[in-house]
Amino acid sequence: SRTGLPEVIYASGKTVEQVKQIALRMVEKGIDLLATRATPAMFEAIQEVVPDAHYNELAQTITYKHHETEVPATYIAVVAAGTSDLPVAEEAVETAQFLGNRVEKIYDVGVAGIHRLFHRLDVIRRARVIIVVAGMEGALASVVGGLVDKPVIGVPTSIGYGANFEGLSALLSMLNSCASGVSVVNIDNGFGAACQASLINKLT
Amino acid sequence: SRTGLPEVIYASGKTVEQVKQIALRMVEKGIDLLATRATPAMFEAIQEVVPDAHYNELAQTITYKHHETEVPATYIAVVAAGTSDLPVAEEAVETAQFLGNRVEKIYDVGVAGIHRLFHRLDVIRRARVIIVVAGMEGALASVVGGLVDKPVIGVPTSIGYGANFEGLSALLSMLNSCASGVSVVNIDNGFGAACQASLINKLT
Amino acid sequence: SRTGLPEVIYASGKTVEQVKQIALRMVEKGIDLLATRATPAMFEAIQEVVPDAHYNELAQTITYKHHETEVPATYIAVVAAGTSDLPVAEEAVETAQFLGNRVEKIYDVGVAGIHRLFHRLDVIRRARVIIVVAGMEGALASVVGGLVDKPVIGVPTSIGYGANFEGLSALLSMLNSCASGVSVVNIDNGFGAACQASLINKLT
Amino acid sequence: SRTGLPEVIYASGKTVEQVKQIALRMVEKGIDLLATRATPAMFEAIQEVVPDAHYNELAQTITYKHHETEVPATYIAVVAAGTSDLPVAEEAVETAQFLGNRVEKIYDVGVAGIHRLFHRLDVIRRARVIIVVAGMEGALASVVGGLVDKPVIGVPTSIGYGANFEGLSALLSMLNSCASGVSVVNIDNGFGAACQASLINKLT
Amino acid sequence: SRTGLPEVIYASGKTVEQVKQIALRMVEKGIDLLATRATPAMFEAIQEVVPDAHYNELAQTITYKHHETEVPATYIAVVAAGTSDLPVAEEAVETAQFLGNRVEKIYDVGVAGIHRLFHRLDVIRRARVIIVVAGMEGALASVVGGLVDKPVIGVPTSIGYGANFEGLSALLSMLNSCASGVSVVNIDNGFGAACQASLINKLT
Amino acid sequence: SRTGLPEVIYASGKTVEQVKQIALRMVEKGIDLLATRATPAMFEAIQEVVPDAHYNELAQTITYKHHETEVPATYIAVVAAGTSDLPVAEEAVETAQFLGNRVEKIYDVGVAGIHRLFHRLDVIRRARVIIVVAGMEGALASVVGGLVDKPVIGVPTSIGYGANFEGLSALLSMLNSCASGVSVVNIDNGFGAACQASLINKLT
Amino acid sequence: SRTGLPEVIYASGKTVEQVKQIALRMVEKGIDLLATRATPAMFEAIQEVVPDAHYNELAQTITYKHHETEVPATYIAVVAAGTSDLPVAEEAVETAQFLGNRVEKIYDVGVAGIHRLFHRLDVIRRARVIIVVAGMEGALASVVGGLVDKPVIGVPTSIGYGANFEGLSALLSMLNSCASGVSVVNIDNGFGAACQASLINKLT
Amino acid sequence: SRTGLPEVIYASGKTVEQVKQIALRMVEKGIDLLATRATPAMFEAIQEVVPDAHYNELAQTITYKHHETEVPATYIAVVAAGTSDLPVAEEAVETAQFLGNRVEKIYDVGVAGIHRLFHRLDVIRRARVIIVVAGMEGALASVVGGLVDKPVIGVPTSIGYGANFEGLSALLSMLNSCASGVSVVNIDNGFGAACQASLINKLT
Ligand SMILES: Nc1ncnc2c1ncn2[C@@H]1O[C@H](COP(=O)(O)O)[C@@H](O)[C@H]1O
Ligand SMILES: Nc1ncnc2c1ncn2[C@@H]1O[C@H](COP(=O)(O)O)[C@@H](O)[C@H]1O
Ligand SMILES: Nc1ncnc2c1ncn2[C@@H]1O[C@H](COP(=O)(O)O)[C@@H](O)[C@H]1O
Ligand SMILES: Nc1ncnc2c1ncn2[C@@H]1O[C@H](COP(=O)(O)O)[C@@H](O)[C@H]1O
Ligand SMILES: [Mg+2]
Ligand SMILES: [Mg+2]
Ligand SMILES: [Mg+2]
Ligand SMILES: [Mg+2]
Ligand SMILES: [Mg+2]
Ligand SMILES: [Mg+2]
Ligand SMILES: [Mg+2]
Ligand SMILES: [Mg+2]
Repeated sequence: SRTGLPEVIYASGKTVEQVKQIALRMVEKGIDLLATRATPAMFEAIQEVVPDAHYNELAQTITYKHHETEVPATYIAVVAAGTSDLPVAEEAVETAQFLGNRVEKIYDVGVAGIHRLFHRLDVIRRARVIIVVAGMEGALASVVGGLVDKPVIGVPTSIGYGANFEGLSALLSMLNSCASGVSVVNIDNGFGAACQASLINKLT
Repeated sequence: SRTGLPEVIYASGKTVEQVKQIALRMVEKGIDLLATRATPAMFEAIQEVVPDAHYNELAQTITYKHHETEVPATYIAVVAAGTSDLPVAEEAVETAQFLGNRVEKIYDVGVAGIHRLFHRLDVIRRARVIIVVAGMEGALASVVGGLVDKPVIGVPTSIGYGANFEGLSALLSMLNSCASGVSVVNIDNGFGAACQASLINKLT
Repeated sequence: SRTGLPEVIYASGKTVEQVKQIALRMVEKGIDLLATRATPAMFEAIQEVVPDAHYNELAQTITYKHHETEVPATYIAVVAAGTSDLPVAEEAVETAQFLGNRVEKIYDVGVAGIHRLFHRLDVIRRARVIIVVAGMEGALASVVGGLVDKPVIGVPTSIGYGANFEGLSALLSMLNSCASGVSVVNIDNGFGAACQASLINKLT
Repeated sequence: SRTGLPEVIYASGKTVEQVKQIALRMVEKGIDLLATRATPAMFEAIQEVVPDAHYNELAQTITYKHHETEVPATYIAVVAAGTSDLPVAEEAVETAQFLGNRVEKIYDVGVAGIHRLFHRLDVIRRARVIIVVAGMEGALASVVGGLVDKPVIGVPTSIGYGANFEGLSALLSMLNSCASGVSVVNIDNGFGAACQASLINKLT
Repeated sequence: SRTGLPEVIYASGKTVEQVKQIALRMVEKGIDLLATRATPAMFEAIQEVVPDAHYNELAQTITYKHHETEVPATYIAVVAAGTSDLPVAEEAVETAQFLGNRVEKIYDVGVAGIHRLFHRLDVIRRARVIIVVAGMEGALASVVGGLVDKPVIGVPTSIGYGANFEGLSALLSMLNSCASGVSVVNIDNGFGAACQASLINKLT
Repeated sequence: SRTGLPEVIYASGKTVEQVKQIALRMVEKGIDLLATRATPAMFEAIQEVVPDAHYNELAQTITYKHHETEVPATYIAVVAAGTSDLPVAEEAVETAQFLGNRVEKIYDVGVAGIHRLFHRLDVIRRARVIIVVAGMEGALASVVGGLVDKPVIGVPTSIGYGANFEGLSALLSMLNSCASGVSVVNIDNGFGAACQASLINKLT
Repeated sequence: SRTGLPEVIYASGKTVEQVKQIALRMVEKGIDLLATRATPAMFEAIQEVVPDAHYNELAQTITYKHHETEVPATYIAVVAAGTSDLPVAEEAVETAQFLGNRVEKIYDVGVAGIHRLFHRLDVIRRARVIIVVAGMEGALASVVGGLVDKPVIGVPTSIGYGANFEGLSALLSMLNSCASGVSVVNIDNGFGAACQASLINKLT
Repeated sequence: SRTGLPEVIYASGKTVEQVKQIALRMVEKGIDLLATRATPAMFEAIQEVVPDAHYNELAQTITYKHHETEVPATYIAVVAAGTSDLPVAEEAVETAQFLGNRVEKIYDVGVAGIHRLFHRLDVIRRARVIIVVAGMEGALASVVGGLVDKPVIGVPTSIGYGANFEGLSALLSMLNSCASGVSVVNIDNGFGAACQASLINKLT
């Protein structure tokens, strides 16, 4: 397509029936299906009409592909700090895979226990592009950015409380990263990070 | 290097003498020179010891390379909205070129006169990666993001007054881009955008 | 009236019974009825006493007019970016029509797919005044403002998440519009935009 | 032109020489001249090449018109709260006149002495469109909006200190106006208000 | 007492049982009872043990006095802008009366219809101290402050939406009042305003 | 006068010449003179035409009274936390005295050394109304409010750095005072606090 | 351990089943159990598998220790301003005790009734380190900091409404404390304060 | 003293003469001298009267001690991220030494090059208490906090630009640290961090 990215259903704020109808129409036209921020009820409704649709409960994504597409040899690394950041990380993973990419997950490597990150550094460094998902102080994006020579896309999450201000602390942290190869997408926007990572991973 | 990016002098907040000494030391060690946010006085001081250094007054950058490096065939497009955004755009251009990239400049294509953008769309679309520099409402990043299938890095600038809040309006705009392949760096951070764009442009 | 605008029920924060009583009293006095932010339950209650009242579920408006009024030949264009912005757009449409104006709707023309906007440009340009409803980065107001020679009233919506800060990003964007003929009303205030547009459309 | 508004020089952040050259080029092409946020030094430089240019020191505007244009019979009212708001009010006045409008000034009618406003209400009410310029708590826009049946464009100013936060208090006030026909432009943006007022005043 | 103000139950965040027990203990000790932010369920629970307690549903206050106290001849004026501001206004009224003051209510005099305020100006001016309760743009505090020679205490309310930011607009407005005799309490703090007004009204 | 408060010159943002002319005109009309935020240069200019004018350099106030007025027996206490808060405290003192009040100063009693406050508690408690001036965390207003049975007007100052955000910390502190008889004026607004204190002190 | 602090379950955002499983696994491995922000339902689930676990309903903490550990002779003082701050204070107490510390509680000593604080000053002064928990204006941290020669850790709470902005007022207050030995943790972070206090209390 | 901390001159906002006089008076009374935020001109003025005073230009501190005091065997580690953070780090160092502590400096160990931090980990871990000074994204406090079992005091600095908002990003980062033993002082407050660190280092 014009933007290299397919149509996607952003289910938040839509009714179960609306999501079902949009999904049905897309599948009937032969369009592959990705719905983000989708509830279990939405998945059940879609399953009635698209029995082979897949639901990732953590990611809150529904996917269905008419045919498997070939994926490039290179991969996207999705690095996440803590357990609470996994929904956003998984939204990125599902989106990236839906867009036809190989993904390596490197989870639970937050900076409070930095040795865990070092154990996984090899697989991170071999990626073509790296998505770093972190809430609270979002320091992981800077630390990773300083350790690799690949583009890093930071996804601040809204995980935290108090002076976290629903993700503001992680967002500002990542925007002010002292590592130079880091760019940032909106708070909790695993989808958007995966879109850009996919465009990068597919560059020839 | 470990991060794929060389050491760079961030001259803001340093004295003329400090910048001169750092520059001298780097050049003597055979390291290429890039100083950002550098004043004319800093350039004059450096010229005494590095006569072939180059100053871009608009970008406020000083550069010196020991040898010309080969550049990839692909290029980075630097798209800027208005005249006032040019210092940031030029910082991105100088940094990208210093890092060994070809750059195409597409300036003065702000959304208030959107036909000018369309006249230049071809050269933008053929880039491997696109940097969009815009202040005020920062709408240009979304518009470009919706027209191309390449990664777009938005650089909000602090251009504006009042409810611009020194770049906050453009920053929030770009973070909330309705186009999906857009990521963002800090306000006025042409340098950081070019670092990431260079990492992308050099991916093999 | 003194302000050229009739009394209107802002139903948010009122009980079903309160809204019903105010509506009844108004209709009995021969006053036309417009209630905004009204729930289906409020509509059912009003229908008991004003059987011919009309409910726009998307707009959350209840209307009833004793007599049809004549409308000027000129019209107000209501331009909306995405599906999620439609409730606010429809509040503007219902209000404008209630105030005795012809309205043309131009929906789903967000800047991420700007060609859709260009297809509808003629009908936008022929309007006497234009309301632009957009959330997320709110770029549509600037783009439209740069393409027309009519007053543009921007309505930022609270659509988005994260660094959208409940409409702040669209609000700041529109206030910093690089197009000069654009003014702005409160976030989600389709009603207020229609009030001003109506005053403009009726100027003789 | 396409937008009904001519090219204008926003002198802030430009050098005296740059402003002079742009002005000269415009006048030579037969384009009328309006520069906002212009310093006395800029005016002196322009006078050398455009001896008949006019400077409004309070407004910080430079104007020059090749021929007087006809003005409509209707007028724009520019209402200002206090003495400190006059630079912004005068920017609006100069811009509106430059765009070919008659203007009536109603100054020093802040809400702390509301009787002064009532003495001038007639001339305000007879305007086709009203610009209200006010800093501090910006209450004047709401008060005027409740007294007239014409479109009101509020211009919050950065006048004040402390919890004024450089115009934020007046901006939020005006956006939350309890009077319904009020829209708002950026803090201190007398120019933008006049642009929209002119588009409205010239509607036929 | 040391502060001239009695102990009061702030019921928000307490359980029905907690509020009941505190109330019972106070009444048993002969202490008069005022509970603010109290739910109907809390009132029912208290009524079981203090049958003569009084509930003001709008104000969400429960009161009980062992003996009627004498009240000064002077009174406190409580001025409120709109219907939605009445809960806060009534909290102020109930508190002021509980503290032994005469109160005059002047309601529904918002600045969008300023003639209603002028009709009631006499009773406002004869007060010893004036509480002004207003949400949205909070302009009423400035307007009243400019019309009287008595201390004015502004209470911004959280009424509004969007750029109201839960009362911030009214708060900043009142803090920046261009009328000089105005001070301000916290958003929605009718109680606190009445405490200070009572201390003033009882000065001998 | 209508508001019980005379005309006052707010010198900030005015030129020396403007202030001098306004002052001269007032004195010639027999009006007493108070200018706040006045520079030494303004005082020198005024002295040429009003030789008996008085300048308080710390307060930045210029005063001149044609006749001494009688002052009530009761007094206003002005309580200040630290040395840096004295300019604001003195603005309050000068204003209160100019308005015809007796003032007692209780300075250097910040909460970091709370025993100093207790040594002065008697003179504070005997005041009719108390102004508390404090920057940084502004805790003094709460502490004093809890110790007295008189109205307390808090004046947050912009003293501090970093997370002080130019007075925001003290402002929010005072608005959230856990002591009930405390109201607040704008950051650094010693003048406004004194205006309200004077209205209170003169109540009969 | 490496950080001197054991693994802890932050139950917020986890399901009852998840918390139960993590708890079970830890206890089986012989690890002591601390869960914060735990609901009664979580406690019931854990009790099924760890019958001797303890629940502090106010603190929302679940604890279980395999063996009692020896505690140092020195103690941590936990000072709290009001009843509403007790959940956070108790989270600090439970955490500190779990980490093997003696704790003294000094509750209900808010600055609005400062004599209560002075009655308890001895026990506060004899502590080795002091945690001060306060919402609203958070003044207690400064007052305590000025009275003792021990490190003070401030915990701002989100208690309050309006301009409290969910704890921002207390947070800024404590960060701007005019007493010099005060540091601060996140809003409502009783756990974090106790962690640092424990590290200090155990220094040899 | 009562607070365990001596009197200190905060020179910011004071004149050279004022600082000189306060210093002289202190030295004459036999009090040791520490002035923070002191300019070279202040130092020169003080040197005239206290010839043995010492100036640290980077820290902007002036110190003079009548006698050397004994220092404990344990030390405070002052860890700083980048060159631009050194003024704040040095303020902490000078203050800590003035208060009678041994200090170890660990500079230039920002997270963008995290191996430098690991090289110095031993000296950090052996400290009794650790001060971490960092601007931009302030990630260093979390990283250090996760590597040591000693109390960590974070000092966010105002180093950065754009979305750094003068230290806000580092402040929020540190407050949201995912490492548990970290507390925070005000932006740029090296002095306050050293005060608390000294109280901790001297605990017996
Ligand atoms: N999780 C997400 N976050 C942000 N944007 C999304 C997300 N999921 C989908 N989108 C975008 O939303 C568009 C669909 O929006 P809508 O028309 O409201 O369903 C898609 O084409 C995507 O560009
Ligand atoms: N314009 C810029 N904006 C942000 N970071 C920069 C800029 N220029 C250089 N830098 C970074 O700053 C580092 C040097 O900082 P310093 O050691 O303070 O000179 C470089 O290695 C870059 O990573
Ligand atoms: N959706 C809306 N947004 C803002 N203001 C509204 C809206 N609907 C009605 N209003 C205004 O609210 C007034 C009625 O408010 P009330 O007296 O509280 O019912 C009307 O006269 C309108 O000026
Ligand atoms: N750099 C600093 N940052 C914050 N507080 C400081 C600093 N230097 C000194 N202080 C405090 O300021 C007090 C003196 O303030 P002042 O009376 O205004 O000179 C000292 O006793 C310290 O508690
Ligand atoms: Mg990197
Ligand atoms: Mg794109
Ligand atoms: Mg236009
Ligand atoms: Mg009106
Ligand atoms: Mg008044
Ligand atoms: Mg009191
Ligand atoms: Mg202390
Ligand atoms: Mg630790």
